[in-house]
This record gives sequence, C-alpha cells and structure tokens, in this order.
Amino acid sequence: MSPVCHEDRALDLGDDHFHDACGVFAVWGHPDAARLTALGLHALQHRGQESAGIVSIEATRPLTAHAHRAMGLVQDAFTAATLAGLRGDVALGHVRYSTTGESHLRNAQPLLAAHQGQPLACAHNGNLTNTDALKRGLDAQGAVFQSSTDTEVFLHLAARARGDSALDRVIEALGACRGAWSVAFLAGRQLIAARDPHGLRPLCLGTLGRAHVVASEPVAFDLIGARYVRDLDPGEVLVIDADGARAYAPFEPVAPRFCVFEHVYFARPDSTLGGQSVYDARRAMGRALGREAPADADLVIGVPDSGVAAALGYAEASSLAFEVGLLRSRFVNRTFIEPVDAQRQFGVRMKLSPVAAALRGRRVVVVDDSIVRGTTARKLVAMLRDAGAREVHLRVASPPTRWPCFYGIDTPDRDELVAAHRAPAEVNALVGADSLGYLSLEGLRGAVNGQRGGFCDACFTGEYPVPFVPVGALTARTQHGLAPPVTRR
Amino acid sequence: MSPVCHEDRALDLGDDHFHDACGVFAVWGHPDAARLTALGLHALQHRGQESAGIVSIEATRPLTAHAHRAMGLVQDAFTAATLAGLRGDVALGHVRYSTTGESHLRNAQPLLAAHQGQPLACAHNGNLTNTDALKRGLDAQGAVFQSSTDTEVFLHLAARARGDSALDRVIEALGACRGAWSVAFLAGRQLIAARDPHGLRPLCLGTLGRAHVVASEPVAFDLIGARYVRDLDPGEVLVIDADGARAYAPFEPVAPRFCVFEHVYFARPDSTLGGQSVYDARRAMGRALGREAPADADLVIGVPDSGVAAALGYAEASSLAFEVGLLRSRFVNRTFIEPVDAQRQFGVRMKLSPVAAALRGRRVVVVDDSIVRGTTARKLVAMLRDAGAREVHLRVASPPTRWPCFYGIDTPDRDELVAAHRAPAEVNALVGADSLGYLSLEGLRGAVNGQRGGFCDACFTGEYPVPFVPVGALTARTQHGLAPPVTRR
Amino acid sequence: MSPVCHEDRALDLGDDHFHDACGVFAVWGHPDAARLTALGLHALQHRGQESAGIVSIEATRPLTAHAHRAMGLVQDAFTAATLAGLRGDVALGHVRYSTTGESHLRNAQPLLAAHQGQPLACAHNGNLTNTDALKRGLDAQGAVFQSSTDTEVFLHLAARARGDSALDRVIEALGACRGAWSVAFLAGRQLIAARDPHGLRPLCLGTLGRAHVVASEPVAFDLIGARYVRDLDPGEVLVIDADGARAYAPFEPVAPRFCVFEHVYFARPDSTLGGQSVYDARRAMGRALGREAPADADLVIGVPDSGVAAALGYAEASSLAFEVGLLRSRFVNRTFIEPVDAQRQFGVRMKLSPVAAALRGRRVVVVDDSIVRGTTARKLVAMLRDAGAREVHLRVASPPTRWPCFYGIDTPDRDELVAAHRAPAEVNALVGADSLGYLSLEGLRGAVNGQRGGFCDACFTGEYPVPFVPVGALTARTQHGLAPPVTRR
Amino acid sequence: MSPVCHEDRALDLGDDHFHDACGVFAVWGHPDAARLTALGLHALQHRGQESAGIVSIEATRPLTAHAHRAMGLVQDAFTAATLAGLRGDVALGHVRYSTTGESHLRNAQPLLAAHQGQPLACAHNGNLTNTDALKRGLDAQGAVFQSSTDTEVFLHLAARARGDSALDRVIEALGACRGAWSVAFLAGRQLIAARDPHGLRPLCLGTLGRAHVVASEPVAFDLIGARYVRDLDPGEVLVIDADGARAYAPFEPVAPRFCVFEHVYFARPDSTLGGQSVYDARRAMGRALGREAPADADLVIGVPDSGVAAALGYAEASSLAFEVGLLRSRFVNRTFIEPVDAQRQFGVRMKLSPVAAALRGRRVVVVDDSIVRGTTARKLVAMLRDAGAREVHLRVASPPTRWPCFYGIDTPDRDELVAAHRAPAEVNALVGADSLGYLSLEGLRGAVNGQRGGFCDACFTGEYPVPFVPVGALTARTQHGLAPPVTRR
Repeated sequence: MSPVCHEDRALDLGDDHFHDACGVFAVWGHPDAARLTALGLHALQHRGQESAGIVSIEATRPLTAHAHRAMGLVQDAFTAATLAGLRGDVALGHVRYSTTGESHLRNAQPLLAAHQGQPLACAHNGNLTNTDALKRGLDAQGAVFQSSTDTEVFLHLAARARGDSALDRVIEALGACRGAWSVAFLAGRQLIAARDPHGLRPLCLGTLGRAHVVASEPVAFDLIGARYVRDLDPGEVLVIDADGARAYAPFEPVAPRFCVFEHVYFARPDSTLGGQSVYDARRAMGRALGREAPADADLVIGVPDSGVAAALGYAEASSLAFEVGLLRSRFVNRTFIEPVDAQRQFGVRMKLSPVAAALRGRRVVVVDDSIVRGTTARKLVAMLRDAGAREVHLRVASPPTRWPCFYGIDTPDRDELVAAHRAPAEVNALVGADSLGYLSLEGLRGAVNGQRGGFCDACFTGEYPVPFVPVGALTARTQHGLAPPVTRR
Repeated sequence: MSPVCHEDRALDLGDDHFHDACGVFAVWGHPDAARLTALGLHALQHRGQESAGIVSIEATRPLTAHAHRAMGLVQDAFTAATLAGLRGDVALGHVRYSTTGESHLRNAQPLLAAHQGQPLACAHNGNLTNTDALKRGLDAQGAVFQSSTDTEVFLHLAARARGDSALDRVIEALGACRGAWSVAFLAGRQLIAARDPHGLRPLCLGTLGRAHVVASEPVAFDLIGARYVRDLDPGEVLVIDADGARAYAPFEPVAPRFCVFEHVYFARPDSTLGGQSVYDARRAMGRALGREAPADADLVIGVPDSGVAAALGYAEASSLAFEVGLLRSRFVNRTFIEPVDAQRQFGVRMKLSPVAAALRGRRVVVVDDSIVRGTTARKLVAMLRDAGAREVHLRVASPPTRWPCFYGIDTPDRDELVAAHRAPAEVNALVGADSLGYLSLEGLRGAVNGQRGGFCDACFTGEYPVPFVPVGALTARTQHGLAPPVTRR
Repeated sequence: MSPVCHEDRALDLGDDHFHDACGVFAVWGHPDAARLTALGLHALQHRGQESAGIVSIEATRPLTAHAHRAMGLVQDAFTAATLAGLRGDVALGHVRYSTTGESHLRNAQPLLAAHQGQPLACAHNGNLTNTDALKRGLDAQGAVFQSSTDTEVFLHLAARARGDSALDRVIEALGACRGAWSVAFLAGRQLIAARDPHGLRPLCLGTLGRAHVVASEPVAFDLIGARYVRDLDPGEVLVIDADGARAYAPFEPVAPRFCVFEHVYFARPDSTLGGQSVYDARRAMGRALGREAPADADLVIGVPDSGVAAALGYAEASSLAFEVGLLRSRFVNRTFIEPVDAQRQFGVRMKLSPVAAALRGRRVVVVDDSIVRGTTARKLVAMLRDAGAREVHLRVASPPTRWPCFYGIDTPDRDELVAAHRAPAEVNALVGADSLGYLSLEGLRGAVNGQRGGFCDACFTGEYPVPFVPVGALTARTQHGLAPPVTRR
Repeated sequence: MSPVCHEDRALDLGDDHFHDACGVFAVWGHPDAARLTALGLHALQHRGQESAGIVSIEATRPLTAHAHRAMGLVQDAFTAATLAGLRGDVALGHVRYSTTGESHLRNAQPLLAAHQGQPLACAHNGNLTNTDALKRGLDAQGAVFQSSTDTEVFLHLAARARGDSALDRVIEALGACRGAWSVAFLAGRQLIAARDPHGLRPLCLGTLGRAHVVASEPVAFDLIGARYVRDLDPGEVLVIDADGARAYAPFEPVAPRFCVFEHVYFARPDSTLGGQSVYDARRAMGRALGREAPADADLVIGVPDSGVAAALGYAEASSLAFEVGLLRSRFVNRTFIEPVDAQRQFGVRMKLSPVAAALRGRRVVVVDDSIVRGTTARKLVAMLRDAGAREVHLRVASPPTRWPCFYGIDTPDRDELVAAHRAPAEVNALVGADSLGYLSLEGLRGAVNGQRGGFCDACFTGEYPVPFVPVGALTARTQHGLAPPVTRR
C-alpha cells in the first residue's frame, strides 16, 4: 500500500530460518553512552544485520540530538569518529532486519523527530497488528509517514496524545497499539522502555555503575560489564530519568505469551530470557528429541550455530557420540560471488563445510533447530552424503513450523512453509534424508518450563494470542492517567 | 529551538559571499526522468553543494516511489547504478546549501512521505518567515518533525488540509505559508510547482519533446536539450499530469519582488531570469559602477567567476584595459589540508591565484560582485599587492550589503556584515585598498531594468517585503476552492 | 634493514596464536578462472586476512596480465566488477597475513612483473631463511626491491637465471633458496607450482573438469566442486600448461619435515594434509591429552574454533561430558571500538562469550590448541570464573611453544613466548587456572602418525630442519638442467 | 609488448587537447614536508589528474620510507590522516596523466624501491625515447619490471650503475636515457633533481625558509609561500642534502629545446617558465593571431580556461570587444552520466556553456589554444550557432598540430590529428565555422621570445630534437666521474 523504495535484497546463503527483526539497546546517565550503545548493539548483532543506528541526547539548552544510522553491520556503521560526534550521556540504539518496511536507510532506526521543540526518538523490536487501522486514522488527521516502518506510528500517536507529560503521551500511544512491542523512547532526556501486555518480545534492565541500561537480551550487558537486574514485565512501562527508574503497569493485564522461538533459534545461547537459560532450553529440546525420535545411528552432529546445543542434548539422551561434523565459515556474513557453473550445494557450502573425517562411512544424525522452506535441508542432506555419510537422519529440535508470525519475525508466506500442508514423511520425501523427526509441542513446552508464564507458539499451532484488527473496527483504548508506580524487587 | 544533529561545517575557502540555498528540478513524462533530473541538478550545482537528492515515481499499482539522497555533489551522489534504481517517468530533484536546518543527510531534499497510501514529495528553494508559528500550530495538532528543514512544514500542512484533491491541499498548505517558496511537489503522479506571491525566488517551465520540465534556472534546460517556455508567475501554481499543464492563480496578488541578488551573484551568467539576461545585467552593473566610481588606474580585473562580467562592463565604461588578473582553481570544490605555518593569504590562494605578469607595477581596479564580511577582500587586496600591483582599487558591483536575508539565502548575522554599521571609507580602512567604491542602489536598479516587475533588495535597504509573523498571530488564510485555470501563452 | 612503510597494525582480539602466513590458489584452463580463484581464496581465508590478490592471464597476443590486489578480506577485495576485469583462463591468487614485510598494499601478492615482455607472477606461502644473503647478492647485481617481501627474491632470481625455459629459470631460482616455500608462478601462460625439499608448508593438486587447480589446502577444492588429486611431494616442481601437468624432482632429496602446527592450529579441521585428517589429528591430540593430563572435573569445553575437536577427544578419553561453554562471535573479523572504561576481559569477550548456564558451579576443563604469550589464557580463565565456573583446568592440546618459527609463521620473539623459559607450573602461576596441562611431544607425534614422513616441530623443540644462512656464506647450488619428469600415480 | 592491466579509461568531456603527463614536487628539510608536498601537487593538479602519490623519508636508523599513492585528485588521495603517516622532513610527490603505461595504481608515482638497504624513489615528468632498447638490455641482465612506466627504467639503471655514490649512479643512469626527463630522486635522504640536456620539460628550484623545494612550475611555490629561485638548467643535476644544494653539469651540452606547448596550453597562465610569463606569451600569441588572421566580426570570446588570454590579445590587436561568451563548469572534473537521447553537443556542454546574451545575433570570433582531433571544435561551433551567434570565426592561437609528441605529452596517433594531412580550409570544412585561422609558426615564436634558448615545436613541424633509438643500436654513453659543481647565481 505504501510507496516503497527500491533496493536489491541479498540472497540468503542457505539460511533457511525465521529471522528476528531487531535488537534494542539504551544507556541512561553514562558519559560514554554512544560507545557503550555501539558495543551493546554489536552483542545483539544476531538480531538484525541490515542496518544499525544510534541517537544520543546532549544536555545542551535546548537539548541537542545526534543521530547516525547506516546500512550494514554495527562495526562498519560506527567508527571512532562517528561515535565521537554522538555526544551526550543518554543514547538509544537499534539493529534491524526488516519485517515491515523495506530494507532502506530511511527505515533504519531509531527514528528521530522533534515535537514541540523536544527530541523524540523511538526504537522498536516487534510488529503491530493494527498498523493499517492506526495509519488510516492518523492519515485522516493529516499525519505524513516518512518511513515505511510501523514504528513511525508510535511517534505520531505519541505526538497526538493528550497527556501532559511525555510518559502520559507514550502510554496513551502504546495503549492504541496491538501486537508485539518491546520498545524504547527517548523523550527529551527521558528514557521510556516498554513491553506489550503479552510480553511477546524480550527486554531487560541492567545497571553499569550509576547508569541504567536496557537491552533486548542480557548478553549485551556482559560485553560492557553491566549487571543484569531483571526482565521488564509484560505490559510494563519503565521510565528512567534524573529521578531514577520507575515502573508503571498502565495496561489491563493479559496472559503472558513470550515468543518460544526466541529459545528455539533467535536468542544467543548464552542469554537467559525470563529466567530460563537458552542453552539449557536447547539442550533440553535435544534431549526430548532424542527420546521422542531416536535413530539407529553412529553419531550426532549439529548444524552450527543454533543446532549444536540441541545436538549435544540429543547425543546425551540417545547415548550416541557427538561430533563436529559441520563447520560454519567465520568469514561469511553476506552473499559473495557465485561461479558460472556452481556445484549443486554451492550456497550451503559457502556457509557450512562438512568434516569428512567425522562422517565417512557413518550413520549420522544431524540436528537442526527448525526447518522453514526445506530447501537448505535438502542441500545439507545431499552435502553430508557427498562427504561420505552412509545414512543421514535429520532431526529438528522444534515442531513443524506451519504458520507465519505477525509479531516481529520475518517468516515466509504460509504456502512457502514446507510443513504447512505436509506430514513429516512428505517433508522428508522432499528433503531426502533416511529419516526425519520433529520435536513434539509437548517436548518443546517441557524444555522451556524454566520460564515463568506462557508462550506464544503460533508458528507451530496457529493459535495467535493477538488478533489482527480489521480496518475501521479500532476502538481507541487509550489510558487516561497513570497507574501508580509499581514497586519492584 | 529544534534538536539538531552534529556535523562539522566545512570552512569556507575565502568565499565571502551570500550563499544561495537550493536548486529545484523536475521532469514529468519522460522514460529517462531520473537521469535527466541528475543532469538538471548538475547544471544547478552552483545553487547548492551540500546535498543532492532525487525522488522518482514508478507507475506501478500502487505507485512506487524511489528515493536517493546523499551529501556532496550531484556527480558523486548519483552513479549509473543509483540512477538505474530510480525508475519511473516522473522525477523531482534538489540540490541544497543549508539555510534552515543543519547540514545533514536527514535534511537532504526532496523530502518523501506517504499520506493516505500515496507518495508525497517536496523540494523547496526559499525560506518561510512564519515557520515557528506554523510549527507551533502543527505541534499542537500532533505533528512530528523528522528533519529540521522548514520544507517539512509543507508536507504536514498539505496532509492536514481539507481539500479533496492533492492540488486543493497543496494550495491550502501554501496559502498558510509566508516568505519565499519556489517549490515543487510530487503528489502521486502529479507534479505541482509553485512560486510565492512575491515571486522572490526563480522557477521556470520548459518542454523536452512531449515531457514537461521545471527548473530554478533555464540553464538546466540547455544541458539536456529542453526548450525554455516561460518563468512561472509570482503566485502561480502549475499542475502537470496526464491532462497536460494547467496554471492557477489562487493567491491574492501582491507586488512582485524578485530577489535582485540572483542577478548580482547567485544565478549563472548564462541564465535569463524574468526576461533579463544575467550576463547583461552584470555587465550593466559594471558599466554603471565605472561611471559612478571611476579610478585612475591602468587596468581592470574581475574576481572570478561572478565579478568578471561586471569587470568587463567597468573596463568598457572607463576605457581601461581588461585583464585576467586572477585565476580560479579548477580543482577546489571544498576545503583541503592547511600547512602548519600557512602563509597569510593561504585560504584565498587555494581558490584564487594572481597573474603577476598582468599586475606587476600596474594600478589595478579589481571588481567583485559584493562584499559580505570583508575578510576575503582584505586578503585579496594583500595578495594583489604581493603579486606586484602598485595600486589596488576595489570596486563592488552592488551596494553595501547591510541586512540579512530571510528568504532562503545564507547570510551572516547583521553584525558580521562589514558594511552594516560602517561607511565605505571605514570599510576600506579594514580592507586596505587604495580606494573602495560601491555601486549605488539606483545604479543597480538601472542595470536590471530589463526585468518585469519589482525587486526585493532588502539586503541593501532593509525594506523587507514579507514581514516576520510573530508567533501566535497567524491567521490561517487558506483557500477554499480554486480560481479557474489561467490561460497562458 | 629495508625501508618500510607506515601503517597501524590492528590489535589482536584476544587472539594469542601463531598466525599462518598465506594461502595460495591457482586455476589453469578454465574460462571462469578468476571467479574460481576468488572462491578458492575465500575457502583459504583462515590462512591470511590482511590482503588478497589475483593475477589472471588473458590469451591475447602479446599476453595480457590483469591484476587486482587489496587490503582486507577476499569478499571485500573482489566484487563482480573487479572479477569481470580479470579475464583469461589462467589465474593465481593469494591471501596474506604478513610475516616478512609490512602489512601494506605494495606487499600484497601475487607479485606481478614483466620480464622480456612476458608476465611473471608469484604467490608464496612460507619464508626463506637466506633472504638477506640473497638480497645482498642481488643488490650487488643491481636489483631494486619494490616490496619488502622475500617473495620478490623469487622474481629477481628467476629473471637472472641462465636457463632457456621459464621452468629452468624457476628451478634455478628455487635452488638458491633455503627455507619454506610452497609457491606458484605464472610464467607467460604456464603455471609452475613447487614445494621446498622439506615440504614444510602444504600444497596440493586437483582437477575441475579438464582444468587443473592448485591450493594450499584441499578444502579450497570442495567449495568449487573440484576433485582432490594429491599433495605435491616435498621438493616437487609441477608444470601445468597446454601439454598437461608434468612433475619434476630437481632438488636433492632431504628428509620430509611437514609443519606439525598445521595440524595443531592453522589448517581447517575439514582439511586432509599428507593423508592425515586434521579433525582426526586434533581429536587424537585431545584423547592423548586426556590420558596424559586428566582432571578431576565435571565437564570439558573447547576454545572455539580450533580447540573444539581436541576438547571432544579429551572428553571421550576422560569420560567427561562435553559442553559448548564458549561461543565465538560470528561478527568479529577485526578490532572494533573499545569503551573508555572497558572491563578487564573486554578484548577476549569481543570474540568469545561464556555460556554461564553450562559453567555455573561446575569444575570445568577448558581445552585450547596452544598458548603463545599467555595473555589471552589469563583473561579466558578469569572470564570463565566470572561466569560461574567453580574450578578451571586449562589443558593445551600441544606441547609448550618455546621457539619462534622461521618458516612462514608469524610468531613473537622468543622472550614473549610464555613457556620459553618457564615450567608449566610457572606458566600457570601467570595464567591463574586451577591446573594446567600440556600434551607431550610424544602424544602429539602419536596423534599425527597418519601422515607420511616426518615433521618440523621446531616451535616445540628448537630443532630447526633448515639452518639460517649467515650472510656471505651462500654458495649458489643452482640446477643446470632438469631431472626427467617423475611418473606419478 | 608489456603485460598490461585492465581498466576502463574515462571518456574525455569534449576535451580535445594534448595532455600533459605529470607534475613533480619535492621538499627537503622541512618538518611539514608531506603536507607541503600535497599542496604543491594540488597547485600542479592541471598537469595530471589520474593519480597522485607522495614518498617521505623519516630520519630513523635505518631510514624509513613512507609512501601513499592513489588514483584520482590530490585532495581525494590525501587526507589529514594519510599525511600524518607520511612522517619525515624530506618528501617527493607526483601527479600523473598516463603517457606510458596504463592508468593503474601500480603505475602511480613516485616509484619506491630499496637498493642495498636504502630507499630509492623516483618521480618523472617526460618520456624516454629509448625505453625499449634500455628495457631489452635490462631484461638481458635479469631486471624485472613491476610497472609499465618507463620511469622504472631509472631505478633499474641507477641500481646497476657502478658509481660509488648515489649521485654518481643517478648520473650514470640518466646518461643512458634519451628523451625528456624532468626527474627527481630520493636516494636515502638525498634529493637529486635533473633536467634532460635539451630541457624539454620544466623544473624549478625554490626555498621556504631554510628548506629547499623543487617543482614543475613556480606556481606551486606561491601556494605554500615559498620563494622562486631559478629554473634548473637544461642538463643540470642538482643535489640537495645536509650540505646544501649543489649543481652539476655532467652531460654534453646540446641546444636547449623547451617544449613550446607548455606556453600554448599546459602550464598555468600565472606561471613563469624560462623567464617568460605564460600569460604574456598567450596574450602575445593572441595579438599576433589578430594581426595575421583578422575577422570581420563584432566581438571576441575565448575558450576557457586556456584560450582566454589569447582572446584578450586578439581583441586588443583587432580592436574588437572582448566578451565572456563561454563559461566553464566549476563542477566537472571527470565524466558523468549521459542521458539516453543526449542532444548533439552534450559532451561539450557538460564542460562549457554559451552565454546567449553575449552571442545572440552577433558575429563572433572564438579563440582556442589549439585543435587536436577537431571533434570538439565542431561541436563548439555548432553550440555557439545554436546559442544565437550569427557568424562563428574560429581562431587558433598556435599552428596546426600535425605530429605526435614523444617527450611526455599524451597526443593521439598522427592520423587522428585533424590537421596532419589537411589544409586549414579542409579542416574548416569539417569544423563548420565561417572561417578558420591558425597562428603561424613565426607568430608563435615571436610570442615566446621572452624565453632564453630554443624551443621544441615538433608537434607543429615534425622536427624532433631527440631521435628514437632503434632497438639494438644503443651505445651506452654513461658518465665516468662527475664534472665539478657549477657555480650558480
């Protein structure tokens, strides 16, 4: 619907995964705010590699906002010189893999605007489900959209809200939004961070000396030596300013529904989300898979990086040897050239190399975290056979992905999901393994039971916790006034 | 007032001039629209060298808008690959030298937004005088500003306007604006071009085969082989779409006040503005100067490029020989390094070199178009003496610049204008010439009398044709309905 | 001694390893030669990341040589456009990590020169031990050196040699050289590849359809679908031209001495060198280490990537659980910014992240392939403790590195080698682990006994197979005439 | 003959001129040597725009040579950071427009090599006529050529020379060379500058405080505040080191033959060469042309920049008005895009714009410095007519160029020279002017009679002062011992 800008999309290198949309990082009250933000974003680089951006606020009168956004990786986007220009002790950063809006610099976040002479910046991980309705309403009021992200909707809603304080206006804006939002705003010198009532996407709080830090995953704290404090609660709105950090719970509570795919694939294995270690969860998925879908084989290998922990668990549960049968190239972050007569598995081989010594003449169980379209799995199986594996048994450490995600994950159309309309045996007929086994939904749920609250598993079940809002049916459910600050640990 | 982004400002290389803000170029109905626009902008490069941008509209369903904007010169910003991506037969381009807003990519024009699912782009040459009042009103209605240009105000006003058609909405938006605007919009596939009622800045119409072209100066037509048709009238709104070009005159007529400084310095000498050749005008200024401020000297030289035509006129009126006593470097478009112990006139010498053979032992009249701060003039005089000139008589082909411009020209604060509070003799005491002479206001007016209508000469006289609007006093004087199309030549 | 060019050296990111110098790749007789070479180099990227280069030969009359060399990674150095310019069906490529000569573009290989109107290119993996003597001799004959690599010596020697054919001249040149050279020349359209008599560095031959390919490691063949044929023999000179491939053995045979550190660290685990799988060798090193240096612990982790296979072997031999306790960042190929107050282990953390869930409260054996200066090991141990490990037992899958390498490996001065003058207990006092164990020399030799012939293990033992030649003592031992071609499998 | 590297050659923008090859600049004994050299090269940018390079010598033990060379303009090639790395108080720089060798980075000068542990760098303006013979001899002695410039020949010859001192060796090397060489060497910390015995190309000496500077044209001194001392004599070899500057005259004197085309076109008009002001010379050429080839016309215009001074002289001699009828774009230093349906004179228009106001209805004399192929002249005449000129009389301020240059100027093959085999009337039939007139050889000679000594005017007359050396016929005429230093002013 919206006017879009042209740009070639890089071909995936045999990377048949759902893709996370974004990572958010913010620092309040540290003289080195922008550099710390760049490092925090670097630690969150796995959540988005298309663009990176930082907005900082310098305490001049009036306030000065500095911004730098660029296509590409954090370490290419931010040089020492760029960071020197991002003065101020408050900074907000974002890495992006586009879900809504095209891959274009003008869609890179954080978005930065001015409202009533104050800077207003926003960085968002997630996806709204009532964007069209909201945009239609805003259009009717004369809003102009300069990006094709739904993140820009937050800015327009906040600017139009009636509240007296920035916090009131942000809460009113968020109250009109449906879907998934782990979001951070800079409103003047205030940092306001919030999670949607279902808590679909992660967001957590930490401290670095007297400074506060906010990040999508706690691994971003480790790199800069910050201390993890806690995850934000679903529905929480957290304000950080010169008076410290104050938590609010302005939205009607609903059942928590954390994205289970963060544990399956998106998050880094060294992260802990909702009190649950991702590495432990993946190992447990592997163990359950070993029990549910055993194989008569000689050894177990994992597809690096995300399938390795599950492969270890599978090996443990099935008492098979674990081997490093596949190597991931350290030097490929994007597509490169292709030879004129490329061999069949060229795309996969650019990223993964088989270790023939570990495979030759053996019956191999290969564990991957998920299968999306199935095209990579087919090439992978063929590559393992070419490297000498006698048998290849493919095991998937999650249930069949049958439904697209509408909450901030880049998934293909339903018809492209190989398991959408196929039984596992039919999938395996396409993939060509000696056998194929998936983890059951129960097995998955058991593996993540260390986490408080419920999960969103709509990509497996089609049970979407937040319905799409038909255009026109939107009833503004904005907040008039704040609930009192919540006392937290 | 607004939050701004950091960037170092390039030092001027002894370029003590008022600076034009912008150039606008548009093509409607040509398969090569973006390339032609890049060339048109290149021909207008003298009007702005800080950033360049093009938006094109591709006739897909829905329409697709392509955009590319970059800091720097047109030929650096646009490669063959970039232009290949700017598909479509309608394109709008802009070159910029910042007057409002900082020098930053996010302020590069054309601005592109979406409103009600349609692309809306805007490129502006000029400056509004009621921006603060308009922004305050828009702020109150929840507008968020993503650039620090006042051009963005057009987009917000047009989006909020009540008219049914894009043309109605643009006219309503323009009706609320005071100051100088030669502006072009792309609204969907329509191209809408307009000049403010005073006609402060230039804008003209041409044709290229069956395509229409719009440009700040007709020289942009010459390069692409387009035919000049006419200047837009002050207050004219011109719509170009599949039904052809239609002119409207929706605003209450006021006295035309074309910026006389376009003739003095900004425009290219090969341009014709308002029916008056710029070259002829400058030559006439020089002749008048020769009559008004003769010098007992051996030869006349001009400061290239803008002072040369006036120098020729001066030589003619005074029957002195004309020589090329100063060369302008072909290779300096921006600052370069400076040696640790730079000699006194280093900055000027990077741009201008004296031809000692023409100067040695001679009494020299040097003609410049204007003096702003006087710093360059002082170095220039010293450099000519060092090169061997026996006497240096500085002649300025315009009156003393005593007042800043508020209509789209980059001028220093009044206190920095060397002539603001000084008589010519006092100025010369600073500049150090053997004599100093300015052109009178009458002389200037006589030189440009080939042009229809009156001029704005506020930078010389302080008589501003458009007053500043005090915040709060703005009464919307929007148009309800269109005047009938004007029949034009 | 030689004049050098300035360039800042990138800080190592906690990468306390010996560094391999170079990778060589060549294609003869394929229309897509340059693209295949770029991919081959990409597969050899682990052997050198500072510069990359390709020379191709186009069969024009006279022959045209095309060259492109650049600092940085292969995929940054070679674009589709660059490769399109590298026309011809013969190509030679090189990736480099400087050992001799500074890191500078003019030292990037392949070197390309013209001699008697014919192109002569050279790419070298290894290091000469009589460079100074050779250069002195060449200096006396008027040679000028335009790089600071010892590779350039090959070009000068070949150009001065008296042989009638390029092959004769290359053999005469090589005959004067002492040390390690796995080298490939393009002489006109001929490809000449050779290994020094000890066979210190690897080089192998493959075929791709009717084309011949040569590479430092066979993994480079896998990516392009080429077939591995065999390793070149120590002392072999292989000529490839329109008459096919012919092998010569012109040098007096000596005992083979393959660099054992290729198996310890340099080579990719999926490579097979001298008939010995690197993965198997590392796993065997780990098993032997487990037997020789057991630990009372709960689990075993490896330092990715090179320590993982040994860790698996250690776990197997000691019946301890293997875990992924350290993650390697996918996004760091070079240094990035550092915060002002970086935490202690910052450098290591940029590359490696501990998985706290696998470590907390456990007694951990961490297996690394080698320790060089020991600085990284100290940070690593501290990082594992900070992540919760109760005990940290460091195990090194090779003997203490006590001597520098003179055969093409980047090693620090002897005094910087932490084990040069220290017993393991003293090393551990610096490193701070609960215990430290090295693999014995016998253990190492047992692990690589799948390979034919002897090894160079001078970095562990100080027993250098090739002595340094004192300047002046060089007696030219050049070859006059060729031994007959060797019949090979 | 030599292997060459591929690179697209930029299209000329209607720039139908002979092109100068190079500019040379050097500083001895100034702490800011590299920055001053960058500025000196910038002032010589008109002599070569394809590549730029600087070598500096830092007085470490052993000496350290720093080098930076890049394609493109000086101000793009050298940043503050690059220059900071070029430490040392001796520096040598070069700008290049290729005459021999392709346009490639590896041909960028200064060339830098090491010989006997000492840096040896060389920068050359000119062209050798016995390169092939010299290369053949060097080839036979085993020299390898790493560039395709004939400048590299100097390095090889100097390295092979038998003299004891660097000066002896440089003189011996130069003694073997025929043709045109204004050349500067850095040999260790010594700066050695020399001109060929005919003095074909310029080179001059200056001082900056206690430092010495050498430059192709004295205009390079003006920018940095250095003082011009004198031109080097033809055949002079000048040594600058800690003992000051010493001049030698080691070569057999021959008649001076300074390139007259430096006055016609190459040199900047503000330069003085051989005691003759270039501006005065061009003005005198114009006056002579006005006398020799008058026209019945209304006004005179010059083709900027090089034709303007001659046009002024023509106007003076013919008592016609001088006008600025053509503007040169300030923003075109290289080719840009071309529209799909470009108008006829597109290429010329990118560089030159007609001022219609000065031309319309008038009979115009247009003065250019020379005509090479005639293609641009045809477009120029057509463009002036299209701009309204009633008659166009083309006057050329030099004789017909009929012969190619072999002394360092980029000229087309003889058959491409429009006047090679055509009388002026035939040329005009192609160019399409109302009349065409050239300056006579006598007229040209009269105009430059301010200069001491004779000229090379082979491009007009075919009388080449230095014959080409047939391959094989070269008799080494090297110097054995130095003539005593020459006492100079």
